[in-house]
Amino acid sequence: MKGITPPLNVEESGGGVMRFSPDEALRLESGGQLNGFEVGYRTYGQLNSDASNAILVCHALTGDQYVASPHPTTGKPGWWIELIGPGKPLDTGRYFIICTNVIGGCMGSTGPSSTDPATGAPYGLTFPVITIGDMVRAQALLVEKLGITTLFAVVGGSMGGMQVLQWTVDYPNRVFSAVCIASAPRHSAQNIALNEVGRQAIMADPDWRGGDYAGLGTRPEKGLAVARMAAHITYLSEAALQRKFGREFQKDGVSWGFDADFQVESYLRHQGASFVDRFDANSYLYITRAMDYFDLAVAHGGVLAEAFRRARQVRFCVLSFTSDWLYPTTESRDIVRALNAAGARVSFVEIESDKGHDAFLLHEPVMEAALSGFVASAAKARGLKS
Amino acid sequence: MKGITPPLNVEESGGGVMRFSPDEALRLESGGQLNGFEVGYRTYGQLNSDASNAILVCHALTGDQYVASPHPTTGKPGWWIELIGPGKPLDTGRYFIICTNVIGGCMGSTGPSSTDPATGAPYGLTFPVITIGDMVRAQALLVEKLGITTLFAVVGGSMGGMQVLQWTVDYPNRVFSAVCIASAPRHSAQNIALNEVGRQAIMADPDWRGGDYAGLGTRPEKGLAVARMAAHITYLSEAALQRKFGREFQKDGVSWGFDADFQVESYLRHQGASFVDRFDANSYLYITRAMDYFDLAVAHGGVLAEAFRRARQVRFCVLSFTSDWLYPTTESRDIVRALNAAGARVSFVEIESDKGHDAFLLHEPVMEAALSGFVASAAKARGLKS
Repeated sequence: MKGITPPLNVEESGGGVMRFSPDEALRLESGGQLNGFEVGYRTYGQLNSDASNAILVCHALTGDQYVASPHPTTGKPGWWIELIGPGKPLDTGRYFIICTNVIGGCMGSTGPSSTDPATGAPYGLTFPVITIGDMVRAQALLVEKLGITTLFAVVGGSMGGMQVLQWTVDYPNRVFSAVCIASAPRHSAQNIALNEVGRQAIMADPDWRGGDYAGLGTRPEKGLAVARMAAHITYLSEAALQRKFGREFQKDGVSWGFDADFQVESYLRHQGASFVDRFDANSYLYITRAMDYFDLAVAHGGVLAEAFRRARQVRFCVLSFTSDWLYPTTESRDIVRALNAAGARVSFVEIESDKGHDAFLLHEPVMEAALSGFVASAAKARGLKS
Repeated sequence: MKGITPPLNVEESGGGVMRFSPDEALRLESGGQLNGFEVGYRTYGQLNSDASNAILVCHALTGDQYVASPHPTTGKPGWWIELIGPGKPLDTGRYFIICTNVIGGCMGSTGPSSTDPATGAPYGLTFPVITIGDMVRAQALLVEKLGITTLFAVVGGSMGGMQVLQWTVDYPNRVFSAVCIASAPRHSAQNIALNEVGRQAIMADPDWRGGDYAGLGTRPEKGLAVARMAAHITYLSEAALQRKFGREFQKDGVSWGFDADFQVESYLRHQGASFVDRFDANSYLYITRAMDYFDLAVAHGGVLAEAFRRARQVRFCVLSFTSDWLYPTTESRDIVRALNAAGARVSFVEIESDKGHDAFLLHEPVMEAALSGFVASAAKARGLKS
C-alpha cells in the first residue's frame, strides 16, 4: 500500500440521492415493503443517446457508491479507481457508470439509520431484514428512473458479485453482460459463521443499546471495530499478511504487555478504528444478514443451473483469485458449472495472486486485462461504437 | 460429534496443585519472576522404579491438565481421552502421564486470576507477561519435584506443540523423544492477528474493567464469548463446517431477524457461551500473548536449525493435517527441515483430514497409529519393558 500514488478520481461525475415517492414502495422478500425509500448513487461518464452504454457497478459489504470519486467522510479515492476512469477497463470516456449504495446501507440509501416515516425516529432494529434480491430490486427501479432499459453490464466483486448474479436471475432481459468477481452463488457455512462473529461483537457492545443507539446518543464503536478487525483478516491471505507484516515489531520491540507490539496488530487496530468513522453498526448487521440469506438456487429447487435458465443470453465473466479463502475458486467454479449446464456463455479466469480476497480491490493486471477484454468483446457484440 | 459414546476416563489418576516456596521463584523471560507460584497438574498411570517412563503432555490455548479425566467445571471427559488410557497410544498401563496447567492459566496454576502475595488482591494486568519458555520452565520444575530427570516423551498439539519444541531447545538432555502435532516454530502474522481480535473483543467489554474485573465483581463474558467464537471458526476447516452445518436452518427456517437462524450460528453461540463458564478472560489475554511472542529461532540468530542444534539426540515426531489452515503443513515442514539441517532424527506425517486444526483433538486413526508406532519405537530405543 505504501509508496503508491493514488490514481486520480474521475472528474466528471453526477448522482446524489434518488427519492421514490410513497406510492413507489420497494417490495421486500420478507413480505414487507419500504415506503418512500431513497437510493444514494453516483454516476461517471455520459449516457449515450440510445442508453445502451450503462454499466452498473455493485459494491461489497462495506463499500458504497463512491466507486471512482473521493469518499465524503474519509477523503480517500474511489474504491475501484483502478478499474474505472478514462482509458481504464471500465472506461468513463465510453461507458456510463452507475454505482448505488445498497438498500440497508448508510451512505444515502434507506437503511436502519434512516428515519422511519411512520415514527419520525431512526428505524434501528425495526428496519425490515433485506436480501440481495431487495438490493437489486431497488437498483432496478433507479436504473429505470435514469431511462435505461437494458444495462450493458453489471459488474461487482464479493457481495457485489452476488448482486450481479441476482440481476441476471431476476432481470435476465435487462442485462447484456455480467461480471462476477471473487464471489459465490450462496453463502457458505464458514462465511455465515464469520458474519455471525461480527454481529455478536456489535451486539455485545452495551452502546449498541438493542439497536437503538442512534436515538440514545451512543455508538457501538468498540464492537463495530472488533467486527471489522475480524473481517479484515479474512480479506487477506496468510501469505499477504506474512509479506506485509511478518513478525515485525513496532518501534522498540517487545513491550511485555498488551500494546500493539507487532505491526500487524497496529494495522488491524487502525482498520477497526477508521472503519467506525464511516460505517453504521446496524447497517453492518443488516447487510451481513442479507449475505447469509443469499442462496440463488433455493428458489429453483436447489438446482443452481435452473436459476440461470432464463439468463442464457447474458454474456458472463467469472473471475476468482487463487489465494482468496473467503470466496475460494471452488465457489466460482460452481457458478461456471451451473452456467454451462444452463447453456449460458461464460468466460472464467482464476487469477494467480497471493493477495487474498482483497485482490479484487487492488491493482491486479490480470484482472484488469481480463475485464478489459471481456468488456471490449461484449461492447462489440452490443454494437457500441468504440 | 453426535452419536459417539465418550470413552471412559482414566480411573487411576493423581495430581493436584504443586506449591513452590517463595525461595523457588520462577524466573521469567520478561526479566521478572513469580514468587511462591503454583502448578496445577494431573497424573495418570504409575512412574516406574527408574523414573524412565514419564510422558509430559502439553495443552493448547484453552486446554488444561484434565487431559484424561473429567473436567471439574463441565464434567466433560478429558480432552485427549482418544489418545490416553489403557491400550491407547499413550498407554496408562505402561507410561506415567503428566499434564500441567500452564503458567498464566486458570485451572490451578498461577495466573492473572491468582492472588498476588504482595497485595492480597488478584493480579489482573499486574501479572507479568509470560512466554512459552516460562510455561516450560515451570513444567521442568514440577517434573523435577516428581523425581524425574529425563522425560521419556513430551507430547502436545497446537500451543502444546510449541511447548514440546521449547522443551527440546531448552532442556535437550531431559527429553528422550518429542511429538509436535499441528503446530509451528513461530507464530505467523495471521495467527497474531487472529489472537489480537480475541484480545480486542475482551478488552472492548466494559465488564473487563481494565483487567480488574475479579476485584470488582464483574466478568467480561460477552467479550470472551466473541473471542471464543472467532477462534472456534479457525479450528475448523471450511469443509468441516460445510459438512456439519452447511446452510441448514434451525427449526422453522428463516426468521427474518438476528436470531440464530442457521445451525452454524447456534453452534457458535453455544461455543462462546459455554467457554466463559470454564475460562478466565485475562488468562486468554496472557496465553495468546505468549503464543504471539513465540519464535524459536529468534534467540539463535533467526536460524531455526541453530535452535535445534543441541537437541540432535532427541527423537522427533512431527504431525500435521491437510485441512489445518491455522497451523498449516508448511509450518510443520519448516520444523522438519530445521531438524534435518540440525542433524536430528525426525519422523513426519501429514495426515489427510478435512477436520481442520481441530483434528488433533478428535478420533483420527492415522494420527493414533502414527503416535503409537513412534512411541513404541522410542520405548524400544529407551529400553522400556513392554
